[in-house]
Amino acid sequence: MAAPGPLSLNTVTVRDAWNLAQCIEGCARHGIPGISPWRDRLAEMGLAAAARRIREAGLRVTGLCRGGMFPAADAAGRRAAIEDNRRAIAEAQALGAECLVVLGGGLPPGSKDLPGARAMFRDGLAAVLPEARAAGVTLALEPLHPMTCADRSVLSTLAQALDLCDEMGEGLGVAVDAYHVWWDPDLARQVARAGRRIAAFHACDWLVPTTDLVFDRGMPGDGVIDLPGLRAMVEASGYRGAVEVEILSRRWWAEDPETVLRIVKQRHATAC
Amino acid sequence: MAAPGPLSLNTVTVRDAWNLAQCIEGCARHGIPGISPWRDRLAEMGLAAAARRIREAGLRVTGLCRGGMFPAADAAGRRAAIEDNRRAIAEAQALGAECLVVLGGGLPPGSKDLPGARAMFRDGLAAVLPEARAAGVTLALEPLHPMTCADRSVLSTLAQALDLCDEMGEGLGVAVDAYHVWWDPDLARQVARAGRRIAAFHACDWLVPTTDLVFDRGMPGDGVIDLPGLRAMVEASGYRGAVEVEILSRRWWAEDPETVLRIVKQRHATAC
Repeated sequence: MAAPGPLSLNTVTVRDAWNLAQCIEGCARHGIPGISPWRDRLAEMGLAAAARRIREAGLRVTGLCRGGMFPAADAAGRRAAIEDNRRAIAEAQALGAECLVVLGGGLPPGSKDLPGARAMFRDGLAAVLPEARAAGVTLALEPLHPMTCADRSVLSTLAQALDLCDEMGEGLGVAVDAYHVWWDPDLARQVARAGRRIAAFHACDWLVPTTDLVFDRGMPGDGVIDLPGLRAMVEASGYRGAVEVEILSRRWWAEDPETVLRIVKQRHATAC
Repeated sequence: MAAPGPLSLNTVTVRDAWNLAQCIEGCARHGIPGISPWRDRLAEMGLAAAARRIREAGLRVTGLCRGGMFPAADAAGRRAAIEDNRRAIAEAQALGAECLVVLGGGLPPGSKDLPGARAMFRDGLAAVLPEARAAGVTLALEPLHPMTCADRSVLSTLAQALDLCDEMGEGLGVAVDAYHVWWDPDLARQVARAGRRIAAFHACDWLVPTTDLVFDRGMPGDGVIDLPGLRAMVEASGYRGAVEVEILSRRWWAEDPETVLRIVKQRHATAC
């Protein structure tokens, strides 16, 4: 099997210990060629300063986390989400990010109307797509695991994301995160269908047992996902981008970030 | 909207406090017309005694939990699972159960081969289907939520279950459990496709937040699932069976079962 594409660090992996400046320095120090920052830490550092430091460090920005989250309880909430996505698109453009990662968002509080929330997601996406196209920013729709459907992501499967790509066309892509899609009986078919629309590939692992629905993701190699198999599938579809390691985990957040980066680098070479 | 079909109590809902004899008496006392027992409690009571008491109480048996679980690390393990399913089919026949609920089972220990485990499930099912047909016992394939894929159920979606039904035909059906399928973007299409093959309809609710991947299911009405909407969908497909309430929940297991049955009955009328 061919070696994995270049490593990128999603900064949430060390979010409790390091701010964005520290993540940039850490990537440079460990020889990790890519980074994927989160917008809260970007705002804290300042967009211009972050863009400059990332450029100086010679890092590629494999994604900006995150846009989307369009469903809301009322029209004002939906407008606010659209405005926030416009800012996210401008930030992604300023960073030269390879994509803006777009999440579904959950059901509005008190709602049981899942098809309605999915329609809100679609409508929000349609509203911001012209700006994304004008900015040259790919919106990478990232389906999250169905266990997040109620409170984080009404975008649940690759098929659903690709249906939106088919409908709206240019400017949209998908982010394939192993953790969120590995279980899907339709995975091989949907990855093949995605083809060149795969804008990002995220790696972490599913632990057995998993003790938390959000913050118990595993280091690549520590769980049951056939990561090399999924990467081969994604590459057979034409993906030539980075392998972005993104681990939301209380266990890894409690470690020294230097250790985390060292292990991430090692696992990128041996377990992805 | 039409009133829900008759209520059935899946006995796991009160599993910590009541044995099967107590569940049978409880259903009779509360005017709950159906019951769905688990095999460990059935073995404890004795099959003949249980069948007689259920018959005397005038209860219908809407399902027997559970068969399936075919994937195993070696051939001996797979043979043992097939033998166990033969016993389960005989028990379902003796009880006059409307179906034997068939679960996927997880990945064999140490395995990352999900397609392989799914093939083992298929092969195990094919091995026992002749016995099920001869016994007149419908095998109801129940896809479980994708968050259980690694350790409980490689059968993850209704589409996957129906593909097996299409392939193997007579004697197979599906169990639609709201908790396991509510998130599926393809739900309406797959329920319509299922048609008369829906052999059971299970109700409980998805809580926000959900604090455990297995034992934090909600009482109907306490979560975000549009249960009446899903029931209407299932009935539009031709389902005329019971509404089986099945709640695996530490919170409800800690309650007095009399209270649980009272609330289940009430929610069956108002929230299903």
